Amino acid sequence: MERWLLDEPVAFYRKLDGSPVALDGRCPHRSFPLGKSRVVGDDIQRGYHGLRFGPDGAGTHIPSQNHVPRVCRVRSYPLVERWRWVWIWPGDPELADESLIPDHFAMGLTDPRNTCMPGCYNFVPGRYMLMHDNLFDLTHIEFLHASSFGEGTRSDIVPTHSEGPASLGSRHEQFDVETPPFLSHAIDYQGRVDRTFGLTMALPCLHHGSDDIFAREADGTRGALLGSLKIFHAVTPATRTSLHYHFALGHGWAHLGEEFLTGLAAAIVPGIQEDVFAASEIEKMIAHEDGRPSELLLAADHVCVRGRRKFETMIRAEAVAANNRAESRPQPVLEAVGTS
Amino acid sequence: MERWLLDEPVAFYRKLDGSPVALDGRCPHRSFPLGKSRVVGDDIQRGYHGLRFGPDGAGTHIPSQNHVPRVCRVRSYPLVERWRWVWIWPGDPELADESLIPDHFAMGLTDPRNTCMPGCYNFVPGRYMLMHDNLFDLTHIEFLHASSFGEGTRSDIVPTHSEGPASLGSRHEQFDVETPPFLSHAIDYQGRVDRTFGLTMALPCLHHGSDDIFAREADGTRGALLGSLKIFHAVTPATRTSLHYHFALGHGWAHLGEEFLTGLAAAIVPGIQEDVFAASEIEKMIAHEDGRPSELLLAADHVCVRGRRKFETMIRAEAVAANNRAESRPQPVLEAVGTS
Amino acid sequence: MERWLLDEPVAFYRKLDGSPVALDGRCPHRSFPLGKSRVVGDDIQRGYHGLRFGPDGAGTHIPSQNHVPRVCRVRSYPLVERWRWVWIWPGDPELADESLIPDHFAMGLTDPRNTCMPGCYNFVPGRYMLMHDNLFDLTHIEFLHASSFGEGTRSDIVPTHSEGPASLGSRHEQFDVETPPFLSHAIDYQGRVDRTFGLTMALPCLHHGSDDIFAREADGTRGALLGSLKIFHAVTPATRTSLHYHFALGHGWAHLGEEFLTGLAAAIVPGIQEDVFAASEIEKMIAHEDGRPSELLLAADHVCVRGRRKFETMIRAEAVAANNRAESRPQPVLEAVGTS
Repeated sequence: MERWLLDEPVAFYRKLDGSPVALDGRCPHRSFPLGKSRVVGDDIQRGYHGLRFGPDGAGTHIPSQNHVPRVCRVRSYPLVERWRWVWIWPGDPELADESLIPDHFAMGLTDPRNTCMPGCYNFVPGRYMLMHDNLFDLTHIEFLHASSFGEGTRSDIVPTHSEGPASLGSRHEQFDVETPPFLSHAIDYQGRVDRTFGLTMALPCLHHGSDDIFAREADGTRGALLGSLKIFHAVTPATRTSLHYHFALGHGWAHLGEEFLTGLAAAIVPGIQEDVFAASEIEKMIAHEDGRPSELLLAADHVCVRGRRKFETMIRAEAVAANNRAESRPQPVLEAVGTS
Repeated sequence: MERWLLDEPVAFYRKLDGSPVALDGRCPHRSFPLGKSRVVGDDIQRGYHGLRFGPDGAGTHIPSQNHVPRVCRVRSYPLVERWRWVWIWPGDPELADESLIPDHFAMGLTDPRNTCMPGCYNFVPGRYMLMHDNLFDLTHIEFLHASSFGEGTRSDIVPTHSEGPASLGSRHEQFDVETPPFLSHAIDYQGRVDRTFGLTMALPCLHHGSDDIFAREADGTRGALLGSLKIFHAVTPATRTSLHYHFALGHGWAHLGEEFLTGLAAAIVPGIQEDVFAASEIEKMIAHEDGRPSELLLAADHVCVRGRRKFETMIRAEAVAANNRAESRPQPVLEAVGTS
Repeated sequence: MERWLLDEPVAFYRKLDGSPVALDGRCPHRSFPLGKSRVVGDDIQRGYHGLRFGPDGAGTHIPSQNHVPRVCRVRSYPLVERWRWVWIWPGDPELADESLIPDHFAMGLTDPRNTCMPGCYNFVPGRYMLMHDNLFDLTHIEFLHASSFGEGTRSDIVPTHSEGPASLGSRHEQFDVETPPFLSHAIDYQGRVDRTFGLTMALPCLHHGSDDIFAREADGTRGALLGSLKIFHAVTPATRTSLHYHFALGHGWAHLGEEFLTGLAAAIVPGIQEDVFAASEIEKMIAHEDGRPSELLLAADHVCVRGRRKFETMIRAEAVAANNRAESRPQPVLEAVGTS
């Protein structure tokens, strides 16, 4: 499988034992795409002149000569497979640190009490920050998603936000509202509810959150938690003006399984397409302005501005780390990107 | 409705009273296209975060905050609706002068004795001067339109040309020719005719003209006017290398109505497609030469050269006017573009 | 017919006597494509304003004026028609030298004992050297063509190579191998064979060669020549990043005619598509690197490297020749490109 990541072609394949491998997608001989080649055992065999490379990127075989020179090698990327995602470290391999990957159990993704599944994948012709901007500011739901899951949402609720060293969250509290239509049927409840909805971003690529529904008692107090929907958005830069967008979802309602999720995903996917539409349209607008649009900031952009600053800080820190590496081992920074 | 004009996106909509509004098509918040948004009352509500702007371009509502800052506004373009066209003034709004719009009655467009209708609209992937070049020099009809309405025309007739401060016309006189096939049926006349055909350009965007058919008497003299076909070509720059092309037509034959015009338009549209083809093909050729082709000028290019000079003069005059404005009110210059 | 050659549009047509003409494809008046115009007698009449040009490129008629100025002319390219190809000289016409065209009889193309026919034409979105690289190094056959005619081939045979002033050849000898499936049926022979396969490039555009099949005797010696397949690849630069690719083939088996070749071409064309695929994919990769990929050279690239040097030498020689021409007549250099 070929995927462009951070403006580079990357070839993905699995070894005989099932573990994933990511190699530079361009053959160093004649630039043929390794991602459009063939797997032979644990190696990848280029589809043009048959050069083979092992999982570590070293050339293992050149059909037309006996000796494989040491320079015949491609870059191999550190990978970690978690749940149904593969995490790639595109930075200095020596600095790769698995512990920086967000805790999948804590996010509810690998908690056995939950049912989780991928929702959809989209290749989006827009720069990756457009999708992060979208996810940082959820006041767009009432408008962009008016015809899909936006019904019953309100954009005038000031979100609370929380911040960690590599995370940034916002949460919207709504009191005494209708049960959102896409959930009322599933949880068999038509009354008034409290709803708290939020996303936390684990920089640099994963937004995870939950939509918690509480019964609203007749006396006006908050009742039992009726259920919680888990939501995951993974945004991976493809080229400077495009991104890979993975959406997953889950829930903890024991009586409802994957079938319910399939139906829910089918209901949400049109909304995801609206996000894709917004990012694509804005890319067209700002491409026309060489990518430097003037921008009016609103109060609701607070989280968005914080998020952009965290990105800049992270990018600077990684550049410093790369510069310092000859002397010492600096704090590693995760530059993880999700693929499915 | 979104239209790109002069390399800028413009959002068009109608107020409750039906009057048209044109606003900058890019939302100042996140560059979402206003032209792909929703009209709410007399305002336009952006489809992303729900910001609203009034007909004057001022922000009227931001859902996620109470206060709308004064900088939350977009440009509003002066518009005038005439017949079935909307005229836009993309220059300094203070200088907009409705009196510069060509006289629609004099052109025959709003004369109640005439029946007029739009013929077709084409988005053309070619710079706007290619279409003006086309319309300035009608000696192309015999060749480019050989298979459509070019039959029976001749390219070797020297046109007479006329010139006003912001207009430029050419007229071809043909004596004792066959009635052109697309008219003979309509006017129920098969004999020889005199035909005078011409277009006048009202700079910077409208070519209007008539195709007048006179009976040819047995004694060789010019007889009665059998009828006159009115023709209108509006050329609006979209981007640097594309244009909007509106074609309309009309006639004064009282016994024939819109149905006749519909049939006539159906017959002429293939010829319009040939003009679109020529402009598109030439754009491909000159794009390859960075838009600076060498060019051999012919005698028939006389009107074309005059037209280009008038354009340059008009563009320079408007630039001077814009520079002078801080001190005095200069002569206004119309930079009008037609849309339907 | 319009063809882009060496980044220029060229219009091809035939005179009444059938001889081919190649003119600059851009009309000097308004840049309309001459290749999308109409032939009138021996002239080409531009489809826009009806200007005509003769086979020598001189303007012969301007409908709207009596006099045709001398500057109204387009470039005419020297052409030679050989077999079913037309050879064009895009360099200085004074230096055109027909004797530099490879000997069609010697290549087996016009030898009456052979049956030859064009196989297919492809427009390839890749720079022309990618196709030459492909044809210089045939060790790719086992891999790129694994699913087409590559079966039974081996990539580990060191080719012998030969070199002339404007030619470069390589030949692969295989001893005691199976008859390749695409031939065994045609020559009604299933036993072991020796097979020598090679291509010779006649710079700058034609690779011609043969696939010779010899019976393998029971005693291990080489027996009779069972037959020989003739192969021709013509590579013509279109733009900087695209090429025209003509493939032809022939044979000398008297009992098999064009029908056999048609079937053979149908079997080979999927393999040709694999070459087109490789060149297209590599173009995408190196376009991303501004066309300057790093490149690991293998032993099998020996012929390829020699070929590139010969190209560079030829290009330099032609530049020198063009510079010297004012003073003397230098050695001509063929810059021939094949079209069908």
